[in-house]
Amino acid sequence: MFKTPPAKPPRTIRYVEEAFRHIQEKKNIRDIVVINELGHPVKSTMEFENSVKFAGLFQELRGRMERGMDKIDPTDELRMLRVRTKCHEILLVPDSKITVIVVQNADK
Amino acid sequence: MFKTPPAKPPRTIRYVEEAFRHIQEKKNIRDIVVINELGHPVKSTMEFENSVKFAGLFQELRGRMERGMDKIDPTDELRMLRVRTKCHEILLVPDSKITVIVVQNADK
Repeated sequence: MFKTPPAKPPRTIRYVEEAFRHIQEKKNIRDIVVINELGHPVKSTMEFENSVKFAGLFQELRGRMERGMDKIDPTDELRMLRVRTKCHEILLVPDSKITVIVVQNADK
Repeated sequence: MFKTPPAKPPRTIRYVEEAFRHIQEKKNIRDIVVINELGHPVKSTMEFENSVKFAGLFQELRGRMERGMDKIDPTDELRMLRVRTKCHEILLVPDSKITVIVVQNADK
């Protein structure tokens, strides 16, 4: 009755650290938050309270998007969520058991 | 106590028709849905049921995003939501009293 989701490859702490460092080297990066499968921030450039707010919002958006997509086209898969606001560009990239959120300054 | 939101310029049927035609001329466009302020699809290339499903999902995502942003940075404003999936790229653009959703085929 329940579809067993495909096994997700593990994401070690070392993997997270390397991904984090790799993103930090990029231009125009304001903040980075890495979230685990439970939606908790495991590494962040923000202080804790903001990380939790961000993680909560984007984890919910991701979940809502994936549930909605499942109804519209169960064969499709979320690859990236990009939110452009007046001041920022926020990217959310699901990566197996973690979710990476990057906040960039929107180029004027 | 309540912030009075800035007045939103009207979006006439003629405006919607023109925006719709303008987008249709672009390459790689699979579907277009225009939603009114109540979240109801007012013009769409999809048949009704799918339009309603899409409108419901994206209107909810937009609302959730704007409420979340309001807590994080009330001065910021949503300009575009872009969802990239394995098969599609979906853009949501708030435009005063309407919201335009465009579905493109994701270039492989």
